[in-house]
Amino acid sequence: MSIVVVGSVAFDSLKTPYGEREKILGGAATYFSLAASQFTKVRVIAVVGEDFTAKHEDVMRSRGIDTTGLVHSEGKTFHWGGEYHAENINDAKTKFTDLNVFQDFKPEIPAGYRDSDFLFLANIDPVLQLQVREQLPNVKLVGGDTMNLWINIKNAELHDTLKRVDILLINDSEAKMLAHDNSLPRAARKVLDLGPKALVIKHGEYGATIFFRDGEFEGTHHPFRAPALPLEEVVDPTGAGDSFAGGFMGYIASQGKMTRSVLKQAMFYGSVMGSFAVERFGTERLESVTRAEIEKRLALFRDLTHLD
Amino acid sequence: MSIVVVGSVAFDSLKTPYGEREKILGGAATYFSLAASQFTKVRVIAVVGEDFTAKHEDVMRSRGIDTTGLVHSEGKTFHWGGEYHAENINDAKTKFTDLNVFQDFKPEIPAGYRDSDFLFLANIDPVLQLQVREQLPNVKLVGGDTMNLWINIKNAELHDTLKRVDILLINDSEAKMLAHDNSLPRAARKVLDLGPKALVIKHGEYGATIFFRDGEFEGTHHPFRAPALPLEEVVDPTGAGDSFAGGFMGYIASQGKMTRSVLKQAMFYGSVMGSFAVERFGTERLESVTRAEIEKRLALFRDLTHLD
Repeated sequence: MSIVVVGSVAFDSLKTPYGEREKILGGAATYFSLAASQFTKVRVIAVVGEDFTAKHEDVMRSRGIDTTGLVHSEGKTFHWGGEYHAENINDAKTKFTDLNVFQDFKPEIPAGYRDSDFLFLANIDPVLQLQVREQLPNVKLVGGDTMNLWINIKNAELHDTLKRVDILLINDSEAKMLAHDNSLPRAARKVLDLGPKALVIKHGEYGATIFFRDGEFEGTHHPFRAPALPLEEVVDPTGAGDSFAGGFMGYIASQGKMTRSVLKQAMFYGSVMGSFAVERFGTERLESVTRAEIEKRLALFRDLTHLD
Repeated sequence: MSIVVVGSVAFDSLKTPYGEREKILGGAATYFSLAASQFTKVRVIAVVGEDFTAKHEDVMRSRGIDTTGLVHSEGKTFHWGGEYHAENINDAKTKFTDLNVFQDFKPEIPAGYRDSDFLFLANIDPVLQLQVREQLPNVKLVGGDTMNLWINIKNAELHDTLKRVDILLINDSEAKMLAHDNSLPRAARKVLDLGPKALVIKHGEYGATIFFRDGEFEGTHHPFRAPALPLEEVVDPTGAGDSFAGGFMGYIASQGKMTRSVLKQAMFYGSVMGSFAVERFGTERLESVTRAEIEKRLALFRDLTHLD
């Protein structure tokens, strides 16, 4: 079943211990779409500028991603600049954020997207997230992401949006900040009280844990943890979390149901897609990875965690 | 098969978000022994002072631990004082370290211990660790622990000891410090080049990963990761790592062989024992936990990580 994703399509200028890149294709919606397209039909909603060429759009098109909802506006595409240092490779240091055309982004759902069963609200202003969610009232499942910026400056709006999100995907520090609690398991319970039926907390190199609200998903509230692959070389961490979300939501959409066992499998596919994303700069690895390589790595993740 | 452990038997004075305790039974060898005694015969080598009573010794004896190697010296028992804060419950702030009788500790192997097949060198001066190791040249497997203090002030001696250790158990920061590398997987490979056939890196609330030297343990060098239990209430983190080591080494000794599958199971039992240790102050929970409770929690750890 098809999934709609709304979020940023951007250019990134990056520096990591492995090199530098200028204005390469990036953005949460881009990473999400490329990862999810391995599992299901993806429809993207985003805005780009005049510097966004057909070549850039073909990266998504060639993966079968529907770009009807990709609005081309006058001006420049959202441009993010950042650095990663060896001391803590997963910690991005933002150098600049040029919102450009993204500043006046008013997401609208193309008619052809309205029959979609799944929706992912990538990390954008929670007010826009809610507007999109309201335009697709009948979807089966809504996933969402957010960040410390919105937790700080749009906390009330974020709380409204969370009431309409089924599964929230955030990282350790965002969960602790959102819940005002330094214990992750306690923070998870408090975030689930805000609306979501399930919460995925991403731990970076330590993997990710999904917490379930009591009574949801066959009643068992036991959390489930997927590992991350111990990688000696993280070439570019950009988009790891969005690729995780793409693999996670894409697999759920491909199954069309939200059982505990589907969500567990989705956690592993999410980690697998995240592990590919960081192997090369930008979207390079996600553009080339094959389903066979994905299944092979899934077996590696199983070997990494299963007793038998 | 029996395992000898050499390390500290101490008194701890603690403060955590859940309360305070004065001079309660502690020490690496104590936690290790109590955890390992659930799986195999344990023989302890340590020194205590005149303030160490029969009541304290009975905590070990009542678990069938052989205390022949527990030397009673004139003076006071090693006394550690520390605090844990809610911001980072796993990070101990040392208030004082009174070595007392531990200062002149010269570990000797009782005659009755010499037929032991397994040895664990808890976190003490690497020079003492090597002396003990040399006195038991025929053991099947040697496990060891160390800390940032020894990595800093006795680096050369530690390197000599590591050449005679089969499995080293340390935490993230110790591994990075020992290898001079901020990438855990790379640090792991470098530490394995120092001697150990396997390296267990403990990630605190994120679990632990065992890395295997190429060619060892059926040739597959793929790492294996055990989770930690997402606990809402960590009452007292003291001894979590030593309890992990006790469960890990104790299970291996109980199996008598070092196959990859035994080591994987041992990783889970280590995490299980660590999860019990932190539920109450000091050794309280380890004194009361039953094998049935351990097996029940092992099933929970499986549920937390296994797809099927």
